[in-house]
Amino acid sequence: MKSIAIIGYGVVGGGITAVLETNSAQVKRTAGDDVQVKYILDLRDFPDSPYADRVVHDIQPILDDPEVVLVCETMGGSHPALEFSVACMKAGKSVVTSNKEVVANFGDQLLQCAKENGVRYLFEASVGGGIPVIRSLLTSVACDRIEKVAGIVNGTTNYILTKMENEGCSFESALTEAQMLGYAEKDPTADVDGIDAQRKIIILNALATGVLLNSEDVYAEGIRNITAEDMAAAKKLGGSIKLIAGTDTVTARVCPMIVKNDNPLAHIQDVFNGILATTSACGDILYYGRGAGRYPTAGAVVADVCAVLSGAADREYTPVFAKSDVKPPEFAEISFVTYIRAECGRNELTDLLKDICDKTDVISDENGVVEVIADRITADQLDEIRAKVNVKSAVRVLD
Amino acid sequence: MKSIAIIGYGVVGGGITAVLETNSAQVKRTAGDDVQVKYILDLRDFPDSPYADRVVHDIQPILDDPEVVLVCETMGGSHPALEFSVACMKAGKSVVTSNKEVVANFGDQLLQCAKENGVRYLFEASVGGGIPVIRSLLTSVACDRIEKVAGIVNGTTNYILTKMENEGCSFESALTEAQMLGYAEKDPTADVDGIDAQRKIIILNALATGVLLNSEDVYAEGIRNITAEDMAAAKKLGGSIKLIAGTDTVTARVCPMIVKNDNPLAHIQDVFNGILATTSACGDILYYGRGAGRYPTAGAVVADVCAVLSGAADREYTPVFAKSDVKPPEFAEISFVTYIRAECGRNELTDLLKDICDKTDVISDENGVVEVIADRITADQLDEIRAKVNVKSAVRVLD
Repeated sequence: MKSIAIIGYGVVGGGITAVLETNSAQVKRTAGDDVQVKYILDLRDFPDSPYADRVVHDIQPILDDPEVVLVCETMGGSHPALEFSVACMKAGKSVVTSNKEVVANFGDQLLQCAKENGVRYLFEASVGGGIPVIRSLLTSVACDRIEKVAGIVNGTTNYILTKMENEGCSFESALTEAQMLGYAEKDPTADVDGIDAQRKIIILNALATGVLLNSEDVYAEGIRNITAEDMAAAKKLGGSIKLIAGTDTVTARVCPMIVKNDNPLAHIQDVFNGILATTSACGDILYYGRGAGRYPTAGAVVADVCAVLSGAADREYTPVFAKSDVKPPEFAEISFVTYIRAECGRNELTDLLKDICDKTDVISDENGVVEVIADRITADQLDEIRAKVNVKSAVRVLD
Repeated sequence: MKSIAIIGYGVVGGGITAVLETNSAQVKRTAGDDVQVKYILDLRDFPDSPYADRVVHDIQPILDDPEVVLVCETMGGSHPALEFSVACMKAGKSVVTSNKEVVANFGDQLLQCAKENGVRYLFEASVGGGIPVIRSLLTSVACDRIEKVAGIVNGTTNYILTKMENEGCSFESALTEAQMLGYAEKDPTADVDGIDAQRKIIILNALATGVLLNSEDVYAEGIRNITAEDMAAAKKLGGSIKLIAGTDTVTARVCPMIVKNDNPLAHIQDVFNGILATTSACGDILYYGRGAGRYPTAGAVVADVCAVLSGAADREYTPVFAKSDVKPPEFAEISFVTYIRAECGRNELTDLLKDICDKTDVISDENGVVEVIADRITADQLDEIRAKVNVKSAVRVLD
């Protein structure tokens, strides 16, 4: 019997006790032992829970109990999640987390702390919810080379974009429905402005490169400006608009992109997530599944619990995340294939682009609206165009 | 420095030495040590290879060398792969393989032999080529419960079906093109008749249930009978026809199925493979990638090499495969939602189905051809219908 603690007994924390019960036989065979939740740290009491007697309001009893070998941190937020995780590891306990914010901001310190204290710090549930992508990258793919990663890592925005695509509705009305269904928060900023996806691509980039980028160096653009016209244009081009979190292992960014139908990411619908890693030996690998939700996320935490308790994680490759002094190139200076829609004459736009792009394809030219694919153009160059003609929309194309 | 041997230096075996060289830094960090190929067993010599001096024609020097801790079996076929693998494990060497035939036929004995000799027997590359699906099922997903698996696990047939769908051509002409491109063998039987997929679903079913089914208990129907009309019908129904290898953890089978577009398997194109596992906590998880080819398959073998050499595999859940005395239900007695096209009167067909199915949807009724969706019907019941009306086609629908 191995004893663990859960700190933060909300949606995910509560899911952990449920999954440990429901899948107890599977957990035992994987962890190598029965697993009991000995403490639950939360500000609240849970008098009606069968775990009521395990609830504590102070981390100290957990730190002091040598029986507790592992702590699940499912509090969310940077603080006190960081301080509690560090304290647990200094007390010789491994920590597993679903908290993308603390990993994206302090993953370097947390992994270093684990190393110094001879314990594990795992974070499968921090990206892609129930999708077993991180362990796979740290085991099977660790002996290969990751050349790039592109992912749909935010279910809320994917739900909104899918709805806009299927029903031709506006961003606002799709957001309202997502809020009614509980897929979007009342304050949807972190999701729709790409902040959540930014944290996740910081983590994926660190797994691919070892460099933990600062959030100010990771461009994040959300989906508020995507219109029904953009959706229609993407369809005409044989694709869909998705919020893509990507890294080429030098720069990472989040922005809406037109994804062509021959890319499996184009077909990821509703709240599902998908992460496409391009590797040297194995080529493209896509991981797809439920990127959020109580049981999928808790299931991913439980998988990490088992990896630690079995001892497998002790033998697996342990990543090192380090901050770099080298600033990555500015997003505005990186060129992308870009769909542009402008109110101007056809030649007016193509003449401007001729000096910038190797290739410009005019898609349509009707009623004073020109649509082109510029191959390729930077955000800075696009701003120069905007200063001269009335650009209604510009959406990058994933290639 | 850890020494390994490769037995069978063909496409995959040759890929292993290449991947070990190209990704040497990544292999070292994952395996925990440098890896050298000390022996290559093959009937042929490779005088122009940098590994020419490692080539042996007899297994004995490999068995006798205590430095060799692991053997990659990439011979293919059941014999002598089985005997060589057993001999290696009895000599205290772990074995990793890309050989689906030997795992599907003798996985129970091979895992038992590994257990008795305190070594590992891993087979990531036997299903899904470069897709890291098996390790993920044995680690992250092992603590969850797999409720069903459905996969596109044969690239040749998926290439042919994709071509038929995109170009409206016949099976024969798509096969000819696949053969010219090297995606299909001169004798394409194992692929197009579902034998290759049958082996892979036997392995996936064993991972999900522990039961290694006999091939005679796993129905396998290939794609030879799929016509351009069937493809058009699938499109009309909002889906595609795919060769689906599936298990509900009681019965496993391979047959062409109409997959609706809301299922990610519908969008897997060309030679790519995808495996969709439905789990209790995490819900649907799809693994997608290159199901065959020199480097992806070799990459998967190398991942297993690293898992063994690092010691991680010693701590991971080790599956037991066992033959069962209980015969699974006959395929012909299992009911599926089924698309039926018949040359007969509308009522003639619906009257026959009324007594069998809960629900029958007529899709079209033109020029003496009736198309229906029968929900649901068994193969035996379908044969009864065939005896009474001229059924031109019947394709099951994945649900």
